[in-house]
Amino acid sequence: MTILRIFIFLMLVTFAIGNENLNSHVFPRPLIIEYLENNEPQLKEYDEVQLKCTSWRFAVEANNLSPWKMIPEECADYVRQYIVGLGYNMDIDMVSNEAGEYAKSVNLGDDGKDVWVFDVDETLLSNLPYYSDHGYGLEVFDSVEFDKWVEKGTAPAIESSLKLYQEVLSLGFKVFLLTGRSERHGNVTVENLMNAGFHGWDKLILRGSDDHGKTATTFKSERRNEMIEEGFRIVGNSGDQWSDLLGSSMSNRSFKLPNPIYYIP
Amino acid sequence: MTILRIFIFLMLVTFAIGNENLNSHVFPRPLIIEYLENNEPQLKEYDEVQLKCTSWRFAVEANNLSPWKMIPEECADYVRQYIVGLGYNMDIDMVSNEAGEYAKSVNLGDDGKDVWVFDVDETLLSNLPYYSDHGYGLEVFDSVEFDKWVEKGTAPAIESSLKLYQEVLSLGFKVFLLTGRSERHGNVTVENLMNAGFHGWDKLILRGSDDHGKTATTFKSERRNEMIEEGFRIVGNSGDQWSDLLGSSMSNRSFKLPNPIYYIP
Repeated sequence: MTILRIFIFLMLVTFAIGNENLNSHVFPRPLIIEYLENNEPQLKEYDEVQLKCTSWRFAVEANNLSPWKMIPEECADYVRQYIVGLGYNMDIDMVSNEAGEYAKSVNLGDDGKDVWVFDVDETLLSNLPYYSDHGYGLEVFDSVEFDKWVEKGTAPAIESSLKLYQEVLSLGFKVFLLTGRSERHGNVTVENLMNAGFHGWDKLILRGSDDHGKTATTFKSERRNEMIEEGFRIVGNSGDQWSDLLGSSMSNRSFKLPNPIYYIP
Repeated sequence: MTILRIFIFLMLVTFAIGNENLNSHVFPRPLIIEYLENNEPQLKEYDEVQLKCTSWRFAVEANNLSPWKMIPEECADYVRQYIVGLGYNMDIDMVSNEAGEYAKSVNLGDDGKDVWVFDVDETLLSNLPYYSDHGYGLEVFDSVEFDKWVEKGTAPAIESSLKLYQEVLSLGFKVFLLTGRSERHGNVTVENLMNAGFHGWDKLILRGSDDHGKTATTFKSERRNEMIEEGFRIVGNSGDQWSDLLGSSMSNRSFKLPNPIYYIP
């Protein structure tokens, strides 16, 4: 009996000690505190970068920034996450939906003079396959490399822009494509657009030899001035750059697609 | 010796069993999985609302939305968090900094004709003490209640706007305040501005009796047209509404302060 009692006593003591020792490691409280202590600086840093880069992105989209050549280095991950995650597509879808609702609300004249202007790059066609190989804006723009990509003619359609494009055409708008691409890329651009599902536009306006050296704002304003002189009414305008939308002969309403990757003055 | 061996054996077994049993409860893996399982739907819903409301806020700031009267109900918490948290102030600071850098970069003429235009509400003065009592945009605008607030004349300065204001004045710009407030609120507005630290403006332009019924875009464009006719150059313009900034006689550069609480056409 004595031996049995000693057995039981020792078993209990062992268990108790074991239990207590283990508890000090495994009780959720210290585990969580440790977790927070270890990661707090990282979390804080992460939150701070998120906040700063969201602020930067707002400044981009509200056109508050001076011309910029690269995204801020600390926002590299943020921008990539925004593009490859849900944010970018959600923003694009919202712009297209709003533009579609507006297009439907317009009473078109019966003279065929109501126009919707679309920019091409990052508005109808996506160059993300190119920018994913170039740090999503973290590298300075390389026109030689980018031209090679354009000449492939394989840029995919931005799906919700294609839907909007078809919608405004079916509503009876004339569609003018006004792009900063050079006239020498005319053929490949037509081919690329058609392969991506865009058909039935009325004009494709590219940068001619006289237009080189002009800012996009100037070039596009001049072309819009001509539209107005020809009696067209610019009812809607979609572009990912403010230089697609601002200047003279502005559209009744403009739709700014998101673009935190590059800036064109 | 045999008894000692049995002791040691039993102690080890007890410890091992205890250890194993405990491990199955305390190993981080099941703990974390349980945590995720319990909270995943909430987290998902939270993330979805964050994404949607961020998208909505971008659409507001990029001027993509049709006129709206209230913030989306599902974004009530999001907007409040943005305003009372770090986001709103960070965005405002960034706008002021960008505007300040631009102001410093401008070569002013020596004829005293370079003008910076400021809107008042949510640009120089903050009405957040009012909106915090009215759901931060979740309630339809109540002009009677809001007028009572305006008549108190206690709206605080937006600090980084005050800094910018003083900066552009010291650089030699003329400062014109162009506000949608009615002329009958002229005195209280002057008093409020001065108490909040704003001095030395050149003109305070309020809505006159002829201006009622005009959109802010029309009213402010007309007043800017007059500035241009008088030979002024509008070099900078700060406002929280696109109707402060767009229209005719637009500024060389415009600075859009954030405002996810209300919309003025």
